[in-house]
Parts: sequence; C-alpha cells; structure tokens
Amino acid sequence: MRPRNPLNIGAAARAMANFGFREMVVVAPYNPVWRETRSALGAEEIVTSARAVQSLVEAFGDASLVVGTTAGSRRNLDRDLLPLPDFPAWLRQRKAAGLVALLFGSEKTGLSNEHLSYCHALVRIPTVVDCPSMNLGQAVAVCAYELARAGLVPTRPPRLTVHLSDPTGAQSLDHLFGRAARVLDQVGYLKPKSRRATLLKLRRLILDLELTNHDAKILGGILAQIEWRILNGE
Amino acid sequence: MRPRNPLNIGAAARAMANFGFREMVVVAPYNPVWRETRSALGAEEIVTSARAVQSLVEAFGDASLVVGTTAGSRRNLDRDLLPLPDFPAWLRQRKAAGLVALLFGSEKTGLSNEHLSYCHALVRIPTVVDCPSMNLGQAVAVCAYELARAGLVPTRPPRLTVHLSDPTGAQSLDHLFGRAARVLDQVGYLKPKSRRATLLKLRRLILDLELTNHDAKILGGILAQIEWRILNGE
Repeated sequence: MRPRNPLNIGAAARAMANFGFREMVVVAPYNPVWRETRSALGAEEIVTSARAVQSLVEAFGDASLVVGTTAGSRRNLDRDLLPLPDFPAWLRQRKAAGLVALLFGSEKTGLSNEHLSYCHALVRIPTVVDCPSMNLGQAVAVCAYELARAGLVPTRPPRLTVHLSDPTGAQSLDHLFGRAARVLDQVGYLKPKSRRATLLKLRRLILDLELTNHDAKILGGILAQIEWRILNGE
Repeated sequence: MRPRNPLNIGAAARAMANFGFREMVVVAPYNPVWRETRSALGAEEIVTSARAVQSLVEAFGDASLVVGTTAGSRRNLDRDLLPLPDFPAWLRQRKAAGLVALLFGSEKTGLSNEHLSYCHALVRIPTVVDCPSMNLGQAVAVCAYELARAGLVPTRPPRLTVHLSDPTGAQSLDHLFGRAARVLDQVGYLKPKSRRATLLKLRRLILDLELTNHDAKILGGILAQIEWRILNGE
C-alpha cells in the first residue's frame, strides 16, 4: 500500500522470491518511485511483472480473503490481532478460503483504519513493545517465511489456492458494499458526523458474513430491489 | 562477517531491535562502510553500540556456541544443515550452551569454508531452490523472528544466556586449537598441500568435543607438555 522507497519494494520482492511467492500488487505507488523500482538493475522478476493499481479493491482482484499486517501499536480498533505464528493454522481452518491477499502498509504510516476495514483478519508480527515497527521488506520476509515454514507456499498458478467452497471475490463484495451503502444513504441511516465510521463498520460486517458467491448474488438482488422501491415509491 | 552495505547493517540492526536482540559485532567491515553506517541519520542504538573487530575469534568473545547461517547451495562440506525451524529445539537440547553467537556471511560471498569451520552448527533458512540467497537484513530478520517465536529472546544482560554447565569460550578454544596446530606442525603431521584442509578439520574436531573449561585446561596442559618435550628433546 503506497510504498515510498524503491529499495523496500525490491527487498519485498526478493523475500517473496526466496520463499516461493510470486504475485505482487503495488497500490498507488508514487510514480517516480515505481519507475525507479522497475528500472533498477537486477530487479526481481516479481517486480517487473507486478501490477500497479490505484485502489485497494483493484489490488485484491478475486482474492476472497484479505489479511492485513500491523505492528499493533496503535489503531487496534475493536479487533483481535492474530499473532503471526498462529496465522497458518487460522488459514487452514478457514472454510471459505480461496485466494488470499496479504496486505502491507506504507513505510511511514502503516495501514489506515480504512485500509484495515477491508481486512478479514489482522496479523501481528510479534515484535517487542519498545521497537514494534518493522522495515517493510523485513516484514514481508518474516511473513513469507512463516507461511513457507507451514508449507503454505503457493504452487503454480502462483497464488495460494485452496478451493474449498465458492467464496466471494473482493470485487463483488465491494459492489455489494456499495449497494448497501447507497441504500443506507437513501433511508437516511447515515448521519454526516458518523458516516465514515458507520461505513467502515458496515464493510467489516459484510466481510464477517463470509458470503459465498451465491449468497452475495441473493443479497445484492435484495438490495437492488429495496433501492428500486425507495427510488420509485410504493 | 565483512558486510559491504551500510543499509544492510542498519537493516540487520533494526530487525534485531524488533525482536529484542541487542549485541551486534561486525567483523572486518570496510572502513568507509562502517563509518557511513554509524553516522547514518536515525542509526539504531544497536549500531552505535556495536563492536567492530578484525577477526572472527574476537567477535565471538566468550560465546561457547557459534552457529553459522547458510543458503546451503554450495559449500555444504560434510555437514548436516539444521533447518531454521528446528534451530530453537536444537538450542534447547544443547547441554553445554552458554552464550550463542549467530554468524552471517557477507552479502556477496556468504561464509567461506574457513568461517564455517568455526561453527558448531549450520542453520539453513528454508528458501526455495531457484532463489536461495537472502538479503542480509532479511536473513537476520527471519532468524531473529524464529528465535523470538520460540521464546529464545535474550534477557538483560543482552545475550542469550543458558548456563547449564561450564562451557568453553571461543577464545580459549582458539588457544587450544593454536597449540594443537603447532604440535602437529612440529611432528610433521601437516603437509603443505593438505595443511589448510587438515586445520579446518582439526578445528571442527575440537568444536565437536564440546569441551568444558576444565577439559580445555587439561588438554591445553597436555599439549603444552608435548610441545615442550618436542622442542627440548628427551
């Protein structure tokens, strides 16, 4: 998410390559940074084939699980943080796991509350209290190591694919969320002051439902129907 | 060991700080590199308080176990490589464990056979075959994470201290080794062609004995006596 240092992007790619991960997506990089990264001598193949996108939702593609990483020092929100050593077992327990996206914040600010609201879970790397914040490339290295250690390395196609059910992609969840937000707007549920916070909670709530594609379609249909009724009167 | 990039030294220190490790020793750094590292804006306390020494033996100080890190692609010698995830259990099983030094090679070349001959064990970070070699700072991060994960973080005094017996320090082992080498020279055991390889094996053999201080003193005394006899005739 919005990385600022070409060396860090390169280091993250190197760590991914070391442990067998291949698909990097860079969200909203500063243009000069991204140009420099890609033109660096000896840039990893992972970097040269990485996608750069403008929004988180684009980044997730059809990932059905999004897991954020945090030092956990601020912004814990109301959520439990999953210690990194417990992350593999948590992944294995998920029934709805399809593609999994692991999200890292920018060097300076980490992930914002809005970024975190896209995450099904937050993983905390167990750093010490008086020096919690890790270098980006090292955070990626440690997470990749933990997943590789547990045998959760993606096989080709280059992503972690565990098709156990019919999970919903992040994009269709985002459509559902947009639709729900519009309906809440139309019925006057969202107050200007609390609007932002309420929408973050709504996104969380929708994520927590762990909808299948089938569920998402049905819910989307219901919302469309509600919206139509509101706009067109009884 | 002979790091070449100030950023890597800084990154290694950062990772150490993240997981609660404090004592860094830099062996034979290039002078400009070391100056630049120490004067870097925001240098970690670990860097500013690090010792720079000229030889491996000085670096180990009174560490009684030296563990090298390797990608394991070349130079396996005749030794088993300990996968990093098994390292904490291995450490706990050691009866003679006092202070433990973890040794990282230089960025370009890793650890040489001579460096490896100082090591009681070699740890391999389980990277993938087609991209085995890790960035120095990331290798330190992953090793520090694994040790912290297992609860093997040093308490103050800032080193991993598990005083189970009366282990020999690296320096007194080195004296013993020097003495043994001299004796072998005097008796004509070392041939010019194989001298270097034989001495590496000798160092390994002495390490493998896992001598206590008491043992080392006795052996040292025996060797001194042999040397005296050789030099002074019967």
